[in-house]
Amino acid sequence: METLQLTSSDRTTFLRSRFFVRLPRSTVDSILKDTRLSTYEEHDVLFHQGDGIDDVFFVLSGLIRLYRVGKDGREADVAVFSKGEMFAENAMYLGRATASAEAAEASIVARIDGAKLRQLAAADGDVAQAFIEHLCHRGKMTEDLLAQDRLLTAPQRVASYLLGHCPNGTATSFSFRLPFQKSVLAGKLGLAPEALSRAFSTLRQSGVTVKGRMIEIHDRHALERF
Amino acid sequence: METLQLTSSDRTTFLRSRFFVRLPRSTVDSILKDTRLSTYEEHDVLFHQGDGIDDVFFVLSGLIRLYRVGKDGREADVAVFSKGEMFAENAMYLGRATASAEAAEASIVARIDGAKLRQLAAADGDVAQAFIEHLCHRGKMTEDLLAQDRLLTAPQRVASYLLGHCPNGTATSFSFRLPFQKSVLAGKLGLAPEALSRAFSTLRQSGVTVKGRMIEIHDRHALERF
Repeated sequence: METLQLTSSDRTTFLRSRFFVRLPRSTVDSILKDTRLSTYEEHDVLFHQGDGIDDVFFVLSGLIRLYRVGKDGREADVAVFSKGEMFAENAMYLGRATASAEAAEASIVARIDGAKLRQLAAADGDVAQAFIEHLCHRGKMTEDLLAQDRLLTAPQRVASYLLGHCPNGTATSFSFRLPFQKSVLAGKLGLAPEALSRAFSTLRQSGVTVKGRMIEIHDRHALERF
Repeated sequence: METLQLTSSDRTTFLRSRFFVRLPRSTVDSILKDTRLSTYEEHDVLFHQGDGIDDVFFVLSGLIRLYRVGKDGREADVAVFSKGEMFAENAMYLGRATASAEAAEASIVARIDGAKLRQLAAADGDVAQAFIEHLCHRGKMTEDLLAQDRLLTAPQRVASYLLGHCPNGTATSFSFRLPFQKSVLAGKLGLAPEALSRAFSTLRQSGVTVKGRMIEIHDRHALERF
C-alpha cells in the first residue's frame, strides 16, 4: 500500500460522482482536503466484515468487491464498485463493516475521514441529502441483486447483464469487452465460475460468442426472449 | 380499505420505532398530525413496483411483504415488514417504488405524507439523521438476505432463522410459534413452499419438530452445527 497525492483528474472523478455532484464546490473541497489515497494490488484486503472502520472509501481506479464469508470459508459478493463509486458509508452509522472489501484488480482508493463526514452530514443539509439519496440508490442496487438471484436462472442473469451493455438504438448485434475478469462477473451475479461457464455455453444457442473477455451478441432479441 | 383514527397505542408504536425514537417529540407530533391509517385484508396490494408513490408507509399491525415480479409472473420477496417498521421511504427519493407491496395478513398501515417528510428531512438535521440511520439499517437487512441466499442451503437458512428465536441463556431446547404463515417464511427465506417443507424434514434429524405453526427445537447445538 502506497500513499499518493490527489491529481486534478482524481478531483474530476470526485466532482462527477453521484454523491459529490450534489454538493457545493466549497463542501467538496473541504472534504477532499483531508482525503488520503492508497494503492492496492489484486487480492489486497481493505477491511474485514465486523471491523470498526471509520473511513468512507471512494474508488479512483480499479475494482473493489464487497463480500461476506460463510462458516465454511466460502465467499459471497454483495457488491462490486468501480471508478467514481463510494462504499462502506454505512459502517459510519452502524459502527461496523457489514462485509469485507478486497481489490479485485490493482486499484487506487481514496479514504475520506468518516468522523468529519458524519459531522458534516449532521450540520449541513446538502450533505445529509446527498447521503440519503446515495443510500437509497445503494439499497436499490442490493435489492436488484436479491430479486435477480431469486427470479432468474444463471443464463437469464448473464443475459440480463449482457443486455445492460447493449448500445441504445435498433442494433440487433453488438460486442463489448468485459470490464473485468470473468471470475468477477461470476461473483457479481452470485454464480460459481463453473456455473458462469455453463451459462455462457447455454447462451451460445442464442447467438452469444465469448473469446477471452470479448463478448459478441449476434441477436439481441433472442437474448431478450431468453 | 377503511380509514381509521390514530389510537394512543398506535402513537406508542410510532414513538418506540427505530425511526421515530430518534426524533424530538414535537417533530413526531407534527409528522403524525397528517398521518392517515388504512386497513388491508390479506392479499390487498398497497402499491405496485414502478408506481410513483409519494407516501411513506408504517406498519401498525399485521404484515406487509415487498416483492418483485419476474417476467413469468413469479414473485420474489425482497423484505417483510411487521409492526413498528417503516417502508417505501426510498421511493420518496428515487421517484418510483422499487418493489410491489401486499398485505400478507390483515394489516393496519399508516401512510405519512412523503412531500412533508422530505421537506422535514431537508430542513431538520434530526430527521435527516434518522433517515440516514434507517437507510443504513434497511440496506444491511437486504444485504443479509443476499448473503444468506448466496452462502446458505435451504436447511441452513431455516436453521439460522430458528436460532434467531432462541431465548438468551443456556437452554438447549426451546419452542416458539411462527409469527406468520409458513408461506410467508418461505418467501422471506427465498424458498418455494415445497423447498421449505423439505428443509423442515431435513432438520427433523437435528431435533426440530413442526406442528402447524408451533416449532420445537430439542437441541440448539445440533442446529448451530448444521
